[in-house]
Amino acid sequence: MHGIAGKGDVMSAEGVCFPEGFAASGMASGIKHSGKKDIALIYSETPCVAAACCTTNRAKSFSLLWSMKKIHNPIRAVLINSGNANALGGPEGWNITCRIMENLAGVMGISQENLLCASTGLIGRVLPEETILRVIPALVKGLSRDGGMDAAQSIITTDRHVKQVHFATGITGMSGNVKIGAMAKGAGMICPNMATMLAFITTDANILRGALKKALSNAVSESFNMITVDGDQSTNDFVVCLANGQARNSTIREGSPEFVEFSESLLEACCLLAKMIAGDGEGATKRMEVIVEGAWSKKDARRIAKKIAGSNLVKAAFAGSWPNWGRIAAACGSASARCDFRRIRISIGSHVVYDGAPVQYCEDDLRRTLSEKEVVFKIDLKQGNGRAVAWGCDLTEDYVRINMEKE
Amino acid sequence: MHGIAGKGDVMSAEGVCFPEGFAASGMASGIKHSGKKDIALIYSETPCVAAACCTTNRAKSFSLLWSMKKIHNPIRAVLINSGNANALGGPEGWNITCRIMENLAGVMGISQENLLCASTGLIGRVLPEETILRVIPALVKGLSRDGGMDAAQSIITTDRHVKQVHFATGITGMSGNVKIGAMAKGAGMICPNMATMLAFITTDANILRGALKKALSNAVSESFNMITVDGDQSTNDFVVCLANGQARNSTIREGSPEFVEFSESLLEACCLLAKMIAGDGEGATKRMEVIVEGAWSKKDARRIAKKIAGSNLVKAAFAGSWPNWGRIAAACGSASARCDFRRIRISIGSHVVYDGAPVQYCEDDLRRTLSEKEVVFKIDLKQGNGRAVAWGCDLTEDYVRINMEKE
Repeated sequence: MHGIAGKGDVMSAEGVCFPEGFAASGMASGIKHSGKKDIALIYSETPCVAAACCTTNRAKSFSLLWSMKKIHNPIRAVLINSGNANALGGPEGWNITCRIMENLAGVMGISQENLLCASTGLIGRVLPEETILRVIPALVKGLSRDGGMDAAQSIITTDRHVKQVHFATGITGMSGNVKIGAMAKGAGMICPNMATMLAFITTDANILRGALKKALSNAVSESFNMITVDGDQSTNDFVVCLANGQARNSTIREGSPEFVEFSESLLEACCLLAKMIAGDGEGATKRMEVIVEGAWSKKDARRIAKKIAGSNLVKAAFAGSWPNWGRIAAACGSASARCDFRRIRISIGSHVVYDGAPVQYCEDDLRRTLSEKEVVFKIDLKQGNGRAVAWGCDLTEDYVRINMEKE
Repeated sequence: MHGIAGKGDVMSAEGVCFPEGFAASGMASGIKHSGKKDIALIYSETPCVAAACCTTNRAKSFSLLWSMKKIHNPIRAVLINSGNANALGGPEGWNITCRIMENLAGVMGISQENLLCASTGLIGRVLPEETILRVIPALVKGLSRDGGMDAAQSIITTDRHVKQVHFATGITGMSGNVKIGAMAKGAGMICPNMATMLAFITTDANILRGALKKALSNAVSESFNMITVDGDQSTNDFVVCLANGQARNSTIREGSPEFVEFSESLLEACCLLAKMIAGDGEGATKRMEVIVEGAWSKKDARRIAKKIAGSNLVKAAFAGSWPNWGRIAAACGSASARCDFRRIRISIGSHVVYDGAPVQYCEDDLRRTLSEKEVVFKIDLKQGNGRAVAWGCDLTEDYVRINMEKE
């Protein structure tokens, strides 16, 4: 079993509710003036081992400050709001966060030490405490195995599409296969540094905390950290994975075959979400996948892949389906990585455009390739074994329009 | 005497021809299919001490490779073309560059060891050798004390405005005050790393090579390296300063009062050009000056200033005159520099919008400020003495339109 939102088995619970023992809810509280859903809750029947990656921005949301304090505890629930970043609202922001979480703990009958929270939206506004407190009872009451979609809808902002995945791994436990479910939000402020958006991953795996941390950190580094929409980094980026052990598989430890299997599944979930985010970049009409091979080192490959996927000039030319490969080469050369342009080979789709020197190509063919919904740019440096893949999108006039004023 | 192109004394030679002993010419050769001017020559009657800063991009123009080989020699002339970057055109590019320079040397009666060249334009096309060879005799014959404007017009690409400055320093020599003249091109591919465009600076100062290098390197670091239009770095960025000594001042040595005076004048020339370039960014309608004060170190201040000036989200909000200061704060926090948001103060023009916590402001006033042609964003970190200034522009739909396809 393996599904992307809307494509999975309609009878089964979706997204974060797919693994055993998880429920979710989502609704409109009034934080967003538009009346759209803006608050979500994820709940596990039993305590979870948790791991998280969080923004490296020095201006961190109070929600993240809260969560990073509690992440080492057994976790039971995560409260998420959109429409307000809960960042830089002044010193009162921290107190408000604490009061909201205290209230949630009371309503749920769970210690606040076992609760996480996350926020996304406009920076610099105080979280509307009363608005949130008012809906907490309904949010808790609404928790359901069918609440995955409601929750996924509640955490998005300028996203055009809801982002959910769920699938079963090959690891079997006493309660069936270990499952993974997830939801994410992305769109703007997506950048090539650290967890660059919100993602909530649930699993019923029985796994040691250290192993979960290692698997998540690897997965994030190859997925969310390799997407770029505009090079801007949010104050609120957060990826969290909760494992409640209800699959009753034998405990997954680092280095075991099950660990390898679990890590690969987690990476797959993260890559699917990462690609959805890149393709849903603000104003984007199509997605690029940048594959760098033959680099001196993996670090060099990552730098080059992200530099190309993040170049405004490459992205704007891509928007116009203009085969200006010189911009790809220039971005490659400016990535602070070793490269020798007498050897390098650059391809757009299946067309080689440069191979130590410019290669003749049919411009019409190339324009057709560039106008597809997903285009692969491949750079072979012919220097070593370093390989990396990054995802990005085109830069359109709509990106600018959206970001000139929005809420 | 102190003038910007068109504002100086109309009787005097302009730009690079302003200092004693320099002449220039510029014309249309046919490299640009539009028929616009695309080739220029700067000439000094006597050999010049030269200093240069050049792109750190690994894909360097053959023109730059040539110039960096010759820069230590006494320099007599610089050939500049626009419309073709002379980069990544394949191995023949180097041979073509050598043949063109050999031809120029023959026509001028100067050794090719004393000639520099620079290029700007589309990457990945071989320089049209015959086209250039055909116009070299006319270009040399056209050299004139009045040729500054022609040369300045010939080096621009998507620039809307010609960029020239000239002024007299306070240093006196036997032939009058030491003078400085310069021309530049910018617009797109302007980024916060190394000399980020073409600039040609002439002076009749009598100065030691080491002193000139030091003065230029300082000036570039505080001017051209602090502007950003799109974060992309060209294969062709080049700043060169030629000093022919014709002012007959006593030799300027590092550390002398004259060196300080000369360095300040050179910095002023570079800052004037840098601001012109930032304000003339592709699609730009207005300019931002980002002043960072009170940073832990100068390096921190530079990082923050450039991160803010280069943020697509800050630039797009600026385009819409939207006082979304949260984006300024988020860019500041993501600059890999020390900052404490409990102390920081952010101002837009004369309005303080954040001072450890959000500050109430009149939105209409702020929108009016943001709609001016030049807006100052000031960040006081209250941590130390680090200070830096960066310049940038707004990000408009026109930027995208221009870069979707152009030539």
